[in-house]
Amino acid sequence: MKLVKNAVGRMVPTEVNGKKAIPFQGVNGYKPCGNKATLPIKSCIDFPSDGNKVVGSIQEALEKCGLKNGMTISSHHHFRNGDLVINQVFDVIAEMGKKDMMWFPSAAFPCHEPMIEHMKNGVIHHIEGSLNGPLGKFASEGKMNGLAVLRSHGGRWQAVQDGEVHIDIAILAAPTADEFGNATGDRGPSACGLLGFGLVDSIYADKVIVVTDNLVPFPCIPWQIQGQNVDCVVVLDKVGEPEKIVSGTTQLTRSPVRLQIAELTAEFVKAAGIMKDGFSFQAGAGGTALAFAIYLKKLMMKAGVKARFIRGGSTKYLVEMLEEELTDFILDGQTFDLEGVRSMRENFGHVNTSPFTSYNWHGKGNFAGMVDVVVLGATEVDVNFNANVVTHSDGLMLHGIGGWQNCLFSKCTILPIPSFRSRIPVIVDKVTTLVGPSELVDVIVTERGIAINPNRKDLIATTKNSGLPICSIEEIKQKVDKIVGGPPEKPKFSNEVIGVVKWVDGTVLDSIFKVKNP
Amino acid sequence: MKLVKNAVGRMVPTEVNGKKAIPFQGVNGYKPCGNKATLPIKSCIDFPSDGNKVVGSIQEALEKCGLKNGMTISSHHHFRNGDLVINQVFDVIAEMGKKDMMWFPSAAFPCHEPMIEHMKNGVIHHIEGSLNGPLGKFASEGKMNGLAVLRSHGGRWQAVQDGEVHIDIAILAAPTADEFGNATGDRGPSACGLLGFGLVDSIYADKVIVVTDNLVPFPCIPWQIQGQNVDCVVVLDKVGEPEKIVSGTTQLTRSPVRLQIAELTAEFVKAAGIMKDGFSFQAGAGGTALAFAIYLKKLMMKAGVKARFIRGGSTKYLVEMLEEELTDFILDGQTFDLEGVRSMRENFGHVNTSPFTSYNWHGKGNFAGMVDVVVLGATEVDVNFNANVVTHSDGLMLHGIGGWQNCLFSKCTILPIPSFRSRIPVIVDKVTTLVGPSELVDVIVTERGIAINPNRKDLIATTKNSGLPICSIEEIKQKVDKIVGGPPEKPKFSNEVIGVVKWVDGTVLDSIFKVKNP
Repeated sequence: MKLVKNAVGRMVPTEVNGKKAIPFQGVNGYKPCGNKATLPIKSCIDFPSDGNKVVGSIQEALEKCGLKNGMTISSHHHFRNGDLVINQVFDVIAEMGKKDMMWFPSAAFPCHEPMIEHMKNGVIHHIEGSLNGPLGKFASEGKMNGLAVLRSHGGRWQAVQDGEVHIDIAILAAPTADEFGNATGDRGPSACGLLGFGLVDSIYADKVIVVTDNLVPFPCIPWQIQGQNVDCVVVLDKVGEPEKIVSGTTQLTRSPVRLQIAELTAEFVKAAGIMKDGFSFQAGAGGTALAFAIYLKKLMMKAGVKARFIRGGSTKYLVEMLEEELTDFILDGQTFDLEGVRSMRENFGHVNTSPFTSYNWHGKGNFAGMVDVVVLGATEVDVNFNANVVTHSDGLMLHGIGGWQNCLFSKCTILPIPSFRSRIPVIVDKVTTLVGPSELVDVIVTERGIAINPNRKDLIATTKNSGLPICSIEEIKQKVDKIVGGPPEKPKFSNEVIGVVKWVDGTVLDSIFKVKNP
Repeated sequence: MKLVKNAVGRMVPTEVNGKKAIPFQGVNGYKPCGNKATLPIKSCIDFPSDGNKVVGSIQEALEKCGLKNGMTISSHHHFRNGDLVINQVFDVIAEMGKKDMMWFPSAAFPCHEPMIEHMKNGVIHHIEGSLNGPLGKFASEGKMNGLAVLRSHGGRWQAVQDGEVHIDIAILAAPTADEFGNATGDRGPSACGLLGFGLVDSIYADKVIVVTDNLVPFPCIPWQIQGQNVDCVVVLDKVGEPEKIVSGTTQLTRSPVRLQIAELTAEFVKAAGIMKDGFSFQAGAGGTALAFAIYLKKLMMKAGVKARFIRGGSTKYLVEMLEEELTDFILDGQTFDLEGVRSMRENFGHVNTSPFTSYNWHGKGNFAGMVDVVVLGATEVDVNFNANVVTHSDGLMLHGIGGWQNCLFSKCTILPIPSFRSRIPVIVDKVTTLVGPSELVDVIVTERGIAINPNRKDLIATTKNSGLPICSIEEIKQKVDKIVGGPPEKPKFSNEVIGVVKWVDGTVLDSIFKVKNP
C-alpha cells in the first residue's frame, strides 16, 4: 500500500478498498469536481399499480432485489444498540450462500458483534462505517479484509451523493410503514424517532427494502422515507428494541469531575457572550455534554434567555427545554431516548433533520456553521488543538466519528474533557489519530483549566476578565503530566494500515494502524 | 417539421423545440432508458458559512446565478392567478438586456399575459408549460416561437428528472423563508399552502432563487423547500395575492344541470360499491367536481362511511370533511382556497405532497393508482372514451393538463360533463386533441345518461340494477346531436403544429395545430 504525506503531515494511502483516494488538502483546500451520483430511470410499469410492495420474507425481498456476491448492503443505526434487523439480514444472506458483501451502516454497535462471524466466513468482506466496540477492536487487530473507512455522518451523505460509495441494496428498519413503502420512525411499538440516517440510502441505493413491524393502511404519515424510493416491504415481528437506544454514551455523567467540567463549560458560554436571545447550541450525547445542557439551562433561566434552536441528538433534557419554551425548535438528527421520540411525534417545534440538511459538506451550505456553540467529546487533544475521537491512547479504534467532524464548523467548538482518564493524560503532544484539525477546535475545558485556541483572539478578549480559570493548553498539560508521571506510553503500531479517517469532503485525513499485541 | 403517426394514429413531430421526441407507444408501451439527470457537486466553501444567502434584489440574484441568453427559467404556480413574482423577474431580465429565455412554469394563468410582450420583444423565446387563457390563445394563433409543450404535473417532474428539460435558474416565490433559503407556503401574509410544484425545480435546477415577503429567523419550519438546494434569497414587499388563488375554475357550480350531474356521479360511486370504509377519492377543482364532493359527503354521512384519504387540490369542502372526521387524511397537491391553506398549517392529517409522490410515472410507483375513484372535467370525449382537456371544439388551446392525465390511473376514472356547452355537443366522433387515452377513461356522467366504458365489465355488472340512467355513449351522443342539430362544425386548422401534448412517460400523444382565422 502506497502512503503519502497529506497537507497536515499525516501518512495516508492513495487507494482505499480499491478506489483512488485523495489526501486531505486542508480544511478549505479541496473542491470537488464532477457530478452527483445518479440512478437508472424507473417506470411505474414495473411496480404494482395498487401500490402494494409487501413480500413474504427478507429472503424474498433480497431475491427480488437481485442480491449478488460482492454487493454493498446498507443500513441505518437509529435503533443504536437495539437493532434487530441487520444481523438477521446477513444471516439470510449467509443462508443464501452469497459472499463478499460490503456492509455500509451509518454506525455499528456492540449488538452487531455477530458480524464478526460473517467476516470470518466470508459473507462480509469488509465494513465501511463507524465501528464502535467489538467490531472496532476486530478491525484494529488487523483481522478485517479491506480497510475500515470512518466517515462523519455528513461524510457518509457526501460519499453516497458523490458516487464514492454505491449502495446496491439498502435495508431500512422502520417502526411504522405502509404497503407502498412510506415509512416513519416516530410512531409504532418500536418507535425510534426519525430515520434521517437512512434517507440518503433511500434516495441513492439501487434497491430499497423497508422492514417494519407495524404495517398501517396507506398512507403512513409522516413519510420520513418516501415509498416512491422503495422496492419492497417486509413485515417482521419486531424490528428493534427502542429501550436500548439509550446506550452507554447517552447517559448523564455522575462523576464529580465531569460535572465540574460541564458547569465550567456552561459558564464559559455565558462569559463569552454566546448565550443570548435567539442563540443556538448543540451538545453531543456524551455524559458531560448532557450535563452541560442542564447547567446551561439554569443559566438561561436565570438570565431570561431563550434559544432559537437546539441541535439534537435529542434527550429528555432538551425536550424539557422545548416544552418549557426555552427554545423555539429542536433540530434533531437522532433521538437518544424515548422522550425524544415522544416529543418528535408530538411537538411541532421538534423537527427531524438528516445529514443532508445538517452536515453534508458538498451541498449549498448546511446547518453546522449556523450553530453558535457546540460541545463535543474527544479521546485526545494535542497541544496544537488537534483532536481525536476515534482511537484511544492505546491505539484501538473503538469509536465512530458520528456528527463530530461536521459539528466542528460551528461558530464556537468546545471540547470539555477530563484532563486524564485512568491516569492517562488526555492532552498529548500529538494525537494518535487526527480527526479534528486544530483550526476548528476553539476551546478545551478541563477540571484543571480552560484553554482557548490562540487563533480565537475574540474569545480570549471577551472572557479575559470573566474570573474563569483560563490558561494555556501547555500549562494544563504540564500539570497533568506531573500528576500522572509524564506523558502516556505510545501505543505500539505495526506499519499496516487497517483504516482511514475521511474528512467531510471525502479526502483522507489520517490512517489508523494495526495495533501490535493489543 | 416531420410528423409521424403514433400508436393511436395521431400525427406527431419527431423533434420538439430542437430535441428528439418519441411518439406515444401506448399507455404501457414505453420504458425509459438511461439515468436520471444529475448536477455538479457543490461545496460549502462557495456558500456563506453563516448561512445568510440574502441578496439585495432580483437583478443581483440573477447576476449571481450567472444569467445568460437562452437560459431556461422556471417558476411554480401555487399563487395561480395571484402570482406577483415571475412577471417582475422577466421585466428585470428584459432590463438586463437578455434574450431568448425559455420560461418553464408549472402552469401559466391570465395574470401572466404580460409575457406576451416579452415573447414579442424576444426576451422569452417560448414557453413550455400549461398555457391557460391569453397565452394559450397567443400560441394557438401561431404567434409563439417554438412549440408549446403541454405536460401533466407528473410529466413535468418526469421531464426534469429525466433530463428532458434542464432548468438553469428556478425562481421560487415563497410566502415564508429564512436567510438560508428554507421556505414554506403554509404561513406568512401571502400564505398559499404548499410549494410542491416547485420541489423538482429546487432539486434539479442549477441555480435556485427563493423570493419571499416574509423573512423569518432561521429555521423556517416547515421547510417545504430545503435551503441546501438554494443559492440566493430575495426579499420583496409582496410575492402573491392568495385571495386570487380561487380562480375561475375553482368555484362551486350553480348550474342546475351541473349540480344534477354531480349528484348522479356521487350516486354512481355509491352504487358501484366504491364508497366504503377506508376508500379514497380525488375530485378536481372544477365546479362540478366540487359539487360532487358535497353530494358524496352527504351519502357518506348517511351510510356512516369514512374515507382513508382524499386527494386534493384542497378546498373548504374537503377541509370540512377532514375536520368532521369523514377522512383520516387529505393528501394535497395544491390548495385551491384559503381554508385549504389554513388547514394545511393546522391539521396533522392535511399533508402536503408533490408531483413526485403523487404523479411521477418514472418512479417506483406513485399515489395515482391507489386512488379508488377520481372525478375530472373534460372539454370533449369521443365515442371510444378518448378525452380532451386542453383544446375547445373551436380548436383553441385554452387549458393546461394539470394532474388530469396522472389521475386517469385511478382505479375508476369518471368524467362528469354536461352533454353540450353553448349548443356544442361534448361527446364527439373524434376528440380535437387526444389527452386521455380511452382505456383509462371509465365512466362518462351527463344529464342525459351515464355511459360506462365497455372494458369495465365489473362496473357495468355492479351498477346494472342500480336504477341509474346507464346507457351507451352512442345513445347519449345521438340524443344530443338531435337537440343541437347535428355534430359541431370542425375547427379549421392549418398544417402548422403549434404545440404538443406529452403523455406521462414523456412521449408525444398528440399535436395541437394552428387555428385558421380564429
